Amino acid sequence: MTNDDILRSNERIDQLYSSDIKIIQSDDTLSFSLDAVLLANFVKSNLSEKLKVLDLCSGNGAVGLFLSSKIKGSIYLLELQNKLSDMSYRSIKLNHLTDRYHVINDDLKNISKHLNNDSLDLVVCNPPYFINHDNSTKNQNDNLTLARHEVSTNLSEVLKVSSQVLKMRGKLVLVHRPERLTEIFTEMLKNRLVPKRMQFIHSHHGDDANMILIEAIKDGKTSGLKIIPPIIVYKNGEYTPAVRRILYGNSKR
Amino acid sequence: MTNDDILRSNERIDQLYSSDIKIIQSDDTLSFSLDAVLLANFVKSNLSEKLKVLDLCSGNGAVGLFLSSKIKGSIYLLELQNKLSDMSYRSIKLNHLTDRYHVINDDLKNISKHLNNDSLDLVVCNPPYFINHDNSTKNQNDNLTLARHEVSTNLSEVLKVSSQVLKMRGKLVLVHRPERLTEIFTEMLKNRLVPKRMQFIHSHHGDDANMILIEAIKDGKTSGLKIIPPIIVYKNGEYTPAVRRILYGNSKR
Repeated sequence: MTNDDILRSNERIDQLYSSDIKIIQSDDTLSFSLDAVLLANFVKSNLSEKLKVLDLCSGNGAVGLFLSSKIKGSIYLLELQNKLSDMSYRSIKLNHLTDRYHVINDDLKNISKHLNNDSLDLVVCNPPYFINHDNSTKNQNDNLTLARHEVSTNLSEVLKVSSQVLKMRGKLVLVHRPERLTEIFTEMLKNRLVPKRMQFIHSHHGDDANMILIEAIKDGKTSGLKIIPPIIVYKNGEYTPAVRRILYGNSKR
Repeated sequence: MTNDDILRSNERIDQLYSSDIKIIQSDDTLSFSLDAVLLANFVKSNLSEKLKVLDLCSGNGAVGLFLSSKIKGSIYLLELQNKLSDMSYRSIKLNHLTDRYHVINDDLKNISKHLNNDSLDLVVCNPPYFINHDNSTKNQNDNLTLARHEVSTNLSEVLKVSSQVLKMRGKLVLVHRPERLTEIFTEMLKNRLVPKRMQFIHSHHGDDANMILIEAIKDGKTSGLKIIPPIIVYKNGEYTPAVRRILYGNSKR
């Protein structure tokens, strides 16, 4: 199969240089961004073949696919939007991962049609970040609005569904915005998810954080949270060495 | 009055070089440390003469006294331990601040004997950090045990008392340990205190955070939390320039 066979109009294949994974992207839908890369980077490696993992709100599958070398077992990509879900299916084929990657093109409200309660070891999630105020300025492109704004789901529901499918002691790894951290803590605890490890992302040295990464454990103890070293993304208009290593590996590209 | 008149045995006077404040310290009690300095640094300046401010668990008065130039109005130092409270009283005299500094040597359980509910603009607090497990290794010196371990009070009570005396929209500024952040969020929200600004302190670049600074607002909205840039304390065995500026000001000492 050539790349021409696998791509629709307006689509391209992007590659994260530190992995061998190719991701089909499109200008018409939300492309994977640094959020997805940093989320996958934040996930701790687990090479047990028995793992069952869900990428919730998986979009074009970037986060789930970036995990292919550090997470073994079965990985489910749940995405509401048909166009994105279809792109992720073709990316899975392109990367020869059909044996352990499974696409679920459905609303997360229907999760129990696809996955048993208390059955997963890990859920990763890059959810819509922005509260859906009626007066908020939305991107007129529906694909982007759904991916960015809490139109079809919201934080509370994402956490409820995550908790539902996770085993006791299973982990949720989430990327979100610092301005909603209080709500994140409240809703996590309401859903038996206890924050255990956090990392803050700052665009530049001296900037407030603009992204947070959180690992929570279902039915964990409330003590013992760790704040790992922050990541600074840019310096002098270029990626910092730390981010370059995540994006490009140890090569000099 | 000479320094000899004001000091008891085993006591000395320490000065934070970036301020003009002198603090009486003793080897027998907990000395002020970087926690107190960073807590005072994290407090936003407010020069209204009408302010009413409480330093809760004030120890030898270091935090409250460090605020003298950035916070105006009346400042109350509440401390349970007589020895520490007495030291803070003498430090206030030494710094000629008796007109607006007031010492309350009592248990915080008795706060309502001294301060009205809903009356304060700001509470600052460097509480005991460690949970009082029966089997925890305690310093045999009672002064230190009380200052470090939750023997005489605990996080929940500290937050309850803070909320009780704060006006609506009044601020609590707290220093604590990251491993208890989940509990801090839970207990704050239970007591109508909403985290609004946080800073993480890391000993060295690449270390997990070992201290957190949190500003909460009584009856604030739950959205809009800010994570300000972190502070790294040491590099190559010396204070970093950022910490040197806080400790020594802009002088070259």
